This record gives sequence, C-alpha cells and structure tokens, in this order.
Amino acid sequence: MTAKLKNDRLIRALLRQPVDATPVWIMRQAGRYLPEYRRVREQAGSFLNLCKTPELACEVTLQPLHRFDLDAAILFSDILTIPDAMGLGLEMIEKYGPRFNSPVRSRSDIEKLRIPDMHTDLGYVMDAVQTVKRELDNRVPLIGFAGSPWTVGTYMVEGGPSKEYGIIKGMLYGEPASLHDLLATVADATTDYLNAQIEAGVNAVQIFDTWGGILTPDAYREFSLNYMRRIVDGLKRDVDGERIPVILFSKGCAHLVEEIAAAGADAVGVDWTVDIGDIRRRIDGRTAVQGNLDPAVLYASPEVIKREVDAVLRAWGAAPGHVFNLGHGIHPQIDPDNVAILVDSVHELSGKYKVKSEK
Amino acid sequence: MTAKLKNDRLIRALLRQPVDATPVWIMRQAGRYLPEYRRVREQAGSFLNLCKTPELACEVTLQPLHRFDLDAAILFSDILTIPDAMGLGLEMIEKYGPRFNSPVRSRSDIEKLRIPDMHTDLGYVMDAVQTVKRELDNRVPLIGFAGSPWTVGTYMVEGGPSKEYGIIKGMLYGEPASLHDLLATVADATTDYLNAQIEAGVNAVQIFDTWGGILTPDAYREFSLNYMRRIVDGLKRDVDGERIPVILFSKGCAHLVEEIAAAGADAVGVDWTVDIGDIRRRIDGRTAVQGNLDPAVLYASPEVIKREVDAVLRAWGAAPGHVFNLGHGIHPQIDPDNVAILVDSVHELSGKYKVKSEK
Repeated sequence: MTAKLKNDRLIRALLRQPVDATPVWIMRQAGRYLPEYRRVREQAGSFLNLCKTPELACEVTLQPLHRFDLDAAILFSDILTIPDAMGLGLEMIEKYGPRFNSPVRSRSDIEKLRIPDMHTDLGYVMDAVQTVKRELDNRVPLIGFAGSPWTVGTYMVEGGPSKEYGIIKGMLYGEPASLHDLLATVADATTDYLNAQIEAGVNAVQIFDTWGGILTPDAYREFSLNYMRRIVDGLKRDVDGERIPVILFSKGCAHLVEEIAAAGADAVGVDWTVDIGDIRRRIDGRTAVQGNLDPAVLYASPEVIKREVDAVLRAWGAAPGHVFNLGHGIHPQIDPDNVAILVDSVHELSGKYKVKSEK
Repeated sequence: MTAKLKNDRLIRALLRQPVDATPVWIMRQAGRYLPEYRRVREQAGSFLNLCKTPELACEVTLQPLHRFDLDAAILFSDILTIPDAMGLGLEMIEKYGPRFNSPVRSRSDIEKLRIPDMHTDLGYVMDAVQTVKRELDNRVPLIGFAGSPWTVGTYMVEGGPSKEYGIIKGMLYGEPASLHDLLATVADATTDYLNAQIEAGVNAVQIFDTWGGILTPDAYREFSLNYMRRIVDGLKRDVDGERIPVILFSKGCAHLVEEIAAAGADAVGVDWTVDIGDIRRRIDGRTAVQGNLDPAVLYASPEVIKREVDAVLRAWGAAPGHVFNLGHGIHPQIDPDNVAILVDSVHELSGKYKVKSEK
C-alpha cells in the first residue's frame, strides 16, 4: 500500500475529480532557468552525468519545489536514456543538443537493437525515482516520463536535432516496414521503462511526443499515435489500489486532439497555439487536459502573467480535469520570480471559476 | 493591356475557374537543390548579391522552368529585402541564416524606421521582375512575394533566426503598442512593395507567414492576420483588366483556416500537417487552396512520389480552386529528377479527378 499523498490535486485533476484549486507544474521546471540548477549541473561535469547520478538528479528534481508551490515533481532525466542504453553512444553537445555516435540508418542497424535491461542498464533512473520518492515524503506526486517512439526515433535516425528530418522521413516514405520495426522496438522498451518507473514509485507518467507535429495526419496516426497507444495499453496503471494516470503530449497536434484523446490515456497535453476552451469542448470529458500557457508569457511583467494565467483558466472554465502547465518547456532565460507569480496565480485565480460551477 | 499568358492555369485555379490539369509550382523551386543554381550562387559571391543583381536573379528564377513543366515562375528574392532597405544591415551567414547588425529592440528603434523607396532602395527587385517578365515572354505567370509583417518582424527584432522568439514575444506580451507600431510600418512598406512588384509586371503575389504558427490564436489574429489583411486591403488587384490574385500562406495555422480565408485573399496556402480535403470542406469555396505535399516525400522513389501526389489530388477531389505545391520549401538535398516526377504526376493524375466532376 502506498502512503497517501499530502497534495493529490494533480492526480485528482488527471482523473477528472473535483479539486480545490487547479494543480500546476511546469515542463522543464527543474532546469537551466534556476541558478541552483546551473551550479549542480556544473558540479556534475556533464548533463548525462547529472542524469546518471541519482543523488544529483534527485537534488535538481526537488529544487523547484523549494522555491515554488508546485503540485508535482517531475523526475530530472532525458527522453534519450533508452537509445543511450541501447548503445547508440549519446553525447550532449553544448549549444547543439544531443548527438548519437552510432545513428540507426539501415535495416541491419534496426535488427541489432536490443531492449535494455531496466534494472541494470537503466537502473540509475529507477534509483533516482526511489531517492526522490524518499526525499519527497509524499508531499506531492512524482511524475515519470519517456519520449514517444516517433520522437525518440527521430534522434536515433537523424543522429541529433534536425531541421528537415529528411533521413527519418525518407525511411517513413521509402522503407516504412523498417521504420515500423524500429518504432515497435522502441515502444516495447518504453513500456518496460515506464512500468519500471511505476514500480519504483512514480505517481503518474507523461509521454512526450515533441515531434509528432511534423507529420501528415495519416503519418501521425501510423507512426506516432499507434506506438503511444501500444505503450499505454502495456502500462501497469493500478498499483496497490492507486491509479497511475498517463498523460500524452504531442506538440503541434491539437488538430487531431479527438483521436489522441481516444488513445487510452487519462490526459492529453496541448501547446499554446490553441484555445483550451475549444479543446475542452472537443474532448468533451473523455480525458483531462494539460496546458497551455505560452512559455513566452513569462518574459512579461507580473500583471501580464496574471492576466494571461486568468485567460487560460477562464477559457477552460468550471469543468473538472484541467492541469495547468506551459504549452512547452520553460525557456532558460526566464526569471524564477516570474515562475512564482505564475504558480501562485494559478492557485489564487482558479478558485473563482470553480466556485461558479457549484452555484 | 498585358499580353495574354500562354499558360494561365495558375491564375485560373487561384480564381477558382476550371482548368484542364491542376497547376503546380514549388516553394523555393529556384534554389540550392539545383546544381545550376549553386553555380550561379557561387558566381554571385553572396546570396544577397544574387538577389541584388537583376540578371542573375532572373537567371535563377528561370532555371527550374528549363527543367520542369511548372505552371509558374516565382521571383528569386528574399523576405528580408524590406528591413535590409530600411538600413538594418542584413547579412546572410552560411549554415546560420540571416543576421541583422542593427536589430529593432526599443521604441526609439521603431520610431526611426522609414518606409524605403520602392524605385531606388528596392529598385533592384523591380528590375528583376521586369527582366524575368521579358525573358518569360508570358510562357507562365510570374509570382511576386513578400514576408508577412509578423514573420519579417521576428527577424528584425530577434536579429536572426530564433528558437524561442523570446525577444519579440516579450515585446508582444509586455509592450504590445510598440510591436503594433513596428508591424504597421512593415505592413505599409510591404503594401507599397507588392504594389510596385505588380506595377513591374508580376501576375500574382504570395505573402509568406512562416512564423504565424508560433502564436496563440488571439495573438495570431492581433499580430499576424490583422497586418496581412491590411496589406491585402491596400493591393492593386486589377491591372489593365487582369485580376492579380493574392495568396496567404501562414505555416502551421491551418486550425485557423476559416479566418485566414476571410481575410480577403484569393487563395490560402496550407502545410502538410492537415488533410487538404478537410481544408476544402472548411473553406467551402470562399478561396482557392494551395498545397500540400510533405516536402520529405521527394526523398522517396518515383512510385512513392506518384502515390503521394495522387493522395493529395484525391483528397482535394473535383472542386475548382486547387494549386498543387509542397507544404513548405523544397529541401536542398532533393534530387531534381524527383521534382520532374512530381510535376508531371500532378498534370497526369489530376485529369481523372476533374473528369469525374463533369460526369
């Protein structure tokens, strides 16, 4: 039996149960905008070393919770831990991003891929989860995560960030069977990976599909959504009587939100390019929704931040099932004081919309 | 009185008149994927020198028409000619993109901006239009173009390409009045610029809004669509009895396509992330539609290219008002032979859908 969460707003909202205030967390809340993060990152020597040292990963995971009244922690890690554990040789290059020394380019590269062992190859992630859970002492839920197979696949095939995704899309149009084999392998590894995180103690999981939005609708269904559904179908979502909610976030895919909402997850994330009120109407209670403030609002003054937070809350209205977040990760240049304004505004301002629903 | 076009399919389709075959042109059809372009580019010494030398700009404008049965030429130029003429000091940096030495950051920077003279400061563009028109001899229409004020503004304010657009979005949320002043000035300059191109002989114009898709719906309406509408309202669209059609292309904005179609243009461009049949139903004959093959299809085999061209044509169906194009610019790595397959497939395959409509 898991100990009870002291603050269970996030879990309740993800399950579309009533809450006293809208829960809020921030994608990349443990990250470069925090000076205390930059100090630990320097101490770790490299980004990957920070991910792979459970005590340090725990420390940066908890940093934003010391500053802000957040309703969740999210494990400090990276979406590329799986291909790294598959032996593709991940490096993180300053001002460039991730680079794989052995990208996957051919059918024989794909056939050679093996699903890593979650307790040896990726044991450092599970150790980090357990360390964070111990330190958190159930103050708020801990979110685990993974990349979507399509998004992780773009890095595995392109070898790094890409502008045009010519190599993986050449495979998509020219050798779709090979790409399906790759994505199936990554999906199965990701299912094991998230299940191991759940076993280690995370209270919810999110699948990040950062690059679903570069696909045609048909290709999105076939090469991205299908494999997220395959993962969702394989997750252990009830642990000792507690439901482990699953969030799917495909950036730039809100035009397909009805289909994403039908994939079996508890919640769907949306970016800031859509009106969250429209999304609520289109999803019509089938899942919770997470989002969707433009991350760039945090460059503005406290007054503007409050006004824009209010606009998102008002657009959502009184329905249950809203988790407040940015529409994408927080930018590294943001002043942490503005994050405090954001978090407190969500809690303060959401009350008035909830009261209305009970009148 | 302008001489009659020998191939007027593009103009007819943009005006939603019947055509014998669907017209096709390709964004960036004069560009780096062509070895003959790379030779002239080298000869010119720099990208900007190529833009500013009318004979060379004419030569590269016509290159793709020597190879492919395209239904239009598009002037070889750049969306940043206007801020360059405003004195912001444009450089094109290899593998980086455009850079302004004097980006626009403050209200006083904005107040100093002057609308350039179209016949002195930007006379090289009008000379290039006239040179191309003479060489083309009305074989196909010539498309003129400009960037949208919002898109041009992102480069003017950020000083170059940006990942997060933090500076201009900081202005959008924090000092919207200043940003409106900037966009109004750019919009007025762009209106003059496109009118000068029309006077010099272009047969249609396109406004490229590459970065409209990074905005919230409200911000898109206020800071991007409004200023494109202002331009459209100011264009001379009838020259000697000939209609000059206007195309608006906001990449990543198809979720707002009804509003874009109501902005007064003759046609709306859409990228590959949407089903063009859905777009046709949503626009419902109010404008023509241009698009929308995934540019990455051109990495595949001739068979796959034909299949994907057919899928776009079939999704559009028998209605008038479709101009075939990629959903964004052609990638530099593409084999020109695949472009020939694409262009010929559009002409060959579109017939069967048109015949159906007359049965």
